[in-house]
Amino acid sequence: MNPTRTESTAMSIQFADRLNNVETSAIRELFKLLGKPGIISFAGGFPDSAMFDVDGIRAAVNAALTEEAGGALQYGATEGYGPLREQLAAFMSGKGCTGVDPDNLIVTTGSQQALDLLGKTLISPGDKVIVEGPTFLATIQCFRLYGAELISAPIDGNGVKTDELEKLIAEHKPRFVYLIPTFGNPSGAMLSLARRKAVLEMAVKHQTLIVEDDPYGDLYFGTTADDRPPPSLLAMSLLVSGSRELLVHCGSLSKVLSPGLRVGWMIGPAELLAKATMCKQFSDAHTSTFAQATAAQYLKAGRMPGTLANVRRVYAERARVMCDALRHELGAAIEFVQPQGGLFVWARLTGAGGKVSDGGEFAKRAIEKGVAFVPGAPFFCANPDPSTLRLSFATVGADKIVEGVGRLAQAL
Amino acid sequence: MNPTRTESTAMSIQFADRLNNVETSAIRELFKLLGKPGIISFAGGFPDSAMFDVDGIRAAVNAALTEEAGGALQYGATEGYGPLREQLAAFMSGKGCTGVDPDNLIVTTGSQQALDLLGKTLISPGDKVIVEGPTFLATIQCFRLYGAELISAPIDGNGVKTDELEKLIAEHKPRFVYLIPTFGNPSGAMLSLARRKAVLEMAVKHQTLIVEDDPYGDLYFGTTADDRPPPSLLAMSLLVSGSRELLVHCGSLSKVLSPGLRVGWMIGPAELLAKATMCKQFSDAHTSTFAQATAAQYLKAGRMPGTLANVRRVYAERARVMCDALRHELGAAIEFVQPQGGLFVWARLTGAGGKVSDGGEFAKRAIEKGVAFVPGAPFFCANPDPSTLRLSFATVGADKIVEGVGRLAQAL
Repeated sequence: MNPTRTESTAMSIQFADRLNNVETSAIRELFKLLGKPGIISFAGGFPDSAMFDVDGIRAAVNAALTEEAGGALQYGATEGYGPLREQLAAFMSGKGCTGVDPDNLIVTTGSQQALDLLGKTLISPGDKVIVEGPTFLATIQCFRLYGAELISAPIDGNGVKTDELEKLIAEHKPRFVYLIPTFGNPSGAMLSLARRKAVLEMAVKHQTLIVEDDPYGDLYFGTTADDRPPPSLLAMSLLVSGSRELLVHCGSLSKVLSPGLRVGWMIGPAELLAKATMCKQFSDAHTSTFAQATAAQYLKAGRMPGTLANVRRVYAERARVMCDALRHELGAAIEFVQPQGGLFVWARLTGAGGKVSDGGEFAKRAIEKGVAFVPGAPFFCANPDPSTLRLSFATVGADKIVEGVGRLAQAL
Repeated sequence: MNPTRTESTAMSIQFADRLNNVETSAIRELFKLLGKPGIISFAGGFPDSAMFDVDGIRAAVNAALTEEAGGALQYGATEGYGPLREQLAAFMSGKGCTGVDPDNLIVTTGSQQALDLLGKTLISPGDKVIVEGPTFLATIQCFRLYGAELISAPIDGNGVKTDELEKLIAEHKPRFVYLIPTFGNPSGAMLSLARRKAVLEMAVKHQTLIVEDDPYGDLYFGTTADDRPPPSLLAMSLLVSGSRELLVHCGSLSKVLSPGLRVGWMIGPAELLAKATMCKQFSDAHTSTFAQATAAQYLKAGRMPGTLANVRRVYAERARVMCDALRHELGAAIEFVQPQGGLFVWARLTGAGGKVSDGGEFAKRAIEKGVAFVPGAPFFCANPDPSTLRLSFATVGADKIVEGVGRLAQAL
């Protein structure tokens, strides 16, 4: 022991009160076990590295360093790098979001930062925010750090139950409602067209801000117009007068191109974007212009449609294989809605035949059999359903998926 | 007017209380004028794009995409990308900071994010933080967003006055003290060796956390050991028992390599880094692995010493030219300490000969004459000195510096 360390134990740093609002994730402990050799992991929440378009990204960064080295390496505007904002506006327009100009969006350091800026900009301690039960874990923790009191709105296979959501809005008058309407993490659910319209109408009726987090919307498995997801809330907002100005839309390149770029964006009312930009100035000054210029060149090169077609095809196949195997191997012991896109199967243990019905207990047994997934309870901000679990099919090949589900059956 | 917009004017978003603590920067208005054609700008706070080592960065990113595409494009650890943490630990060791292991630092999205994480982790509303008067503007705003009450510690040409600092610490018992000891923005001052030791000793005596922000320390102009700056507080902490565990050090590649990478780092007590990492998880998940892997390859390639030698030589020459021109053209109307490194001359209008003595008024007149700088008053969190101004010599060639200072003389 050197004297510095001996003395230091006497000093205990006093941390900010807001840290008392969060706890380190229960999932973290589980993730530490994932390093075990031979584990088949359905636990991740990320895309498959093997599908990254490395050649396309290499061409994009080299083009950026050749054509715009100054812009790609210098400080940039907090709102985002001009050429990227233009490409993203065009990308959104291509997805039916008419009227999105570069000025209507700011670039964020992944969509996680969009959540952080919403918290910083909108949440005072004690403010209420409604989220889906279950919802994205890092959203729960992010908003709680700003002192939010989270209200849980129940979902089913068609997304959030809008009747109950409206009751909660009327009762709690939340600062905003946070939804992942399309293939949400962890639910994988797709909010129906009718419910989307209902959400927009209740936003106007109750003058409530709605946040649409949409990192997975492009990952649909359908190959015809009929089996693709409904338009985003943002695209549909044109149909419901007054709703566009009550809507925030968060997008991301993380699940479709590369998480490592940390390029997300936020579309919203001008007044909100101005405040979020001010907050971002003091959060990280701006998102890496190096990554932004690379993303802009990538989009400009027109490679995104091919990349999306590829990931949709691969994930659709893996989802199909996983769902077939689950039905075949686990039968009545598990129930789930077949996902129509995204990265996840959200399932519930039925307890049929006296099998284990607790997701946490099942996860421990599964690890012993060499397969990992995430129990569902931590994804609820209140009233957790302990029988739930999240399985990702995204990063495992078809053969291994079948083998992994076989191990699940043994663990059960 | 479409109906959406008409209705929207009725809705006014209610923002979080913390936004009342900050105001948009007075400097912003000035920056809008900088687009005027022909303006010579001493207003910037950034390095010269013309000096970026584009070839070296291109080689680094291509190496990253060839050798470690998965790591460079996938999600990464919140603490930072392993290979970069190793390179940064070695970089710090090369600067005399013995005992910095990769585990002792986390990577941040520019050092601005280190400030944000310190605010989030340490500041509860009403907590006191001592900063230099003047100090970095984005620090003032960043800490105020978390509700800090800022106390201003006076400086002179040798940095913060340690006698007065100690009195303020004893009186206010701040959550921490934030200093830019080496070539600070805006003061350009270099804290003397004796004062550095005094700061470390008072940290231990009063058990007060000290934050050393050090983005400029590598930009010294001296060419011999004698005229280089003293060691950083971090390097010196080995000499003052108990001080290392009370010290946070923020570093950045922005001023020496490229701001666009947004790669900074924070070294500090393990307990603090753990809390900051948790907060960072919900701020932006992690810093761009694409940028981190590129930075790691750049450092590994051994190009940094040459890059540093180049920027030191160029900035030293520009600083010399600017200071000579200021003395020659403005004479007794201005006073300043010749900077020994960094990007800035911090000056005071004396009012001699009945000349203008208000920095803001002078800035307006200067813009009319075609030269821009930043008045000094906004850099004070309290008791602003209106006669001060900040001039950056970093991005203007020698001829233009002389011409710009000539215009300043006309404006005076």
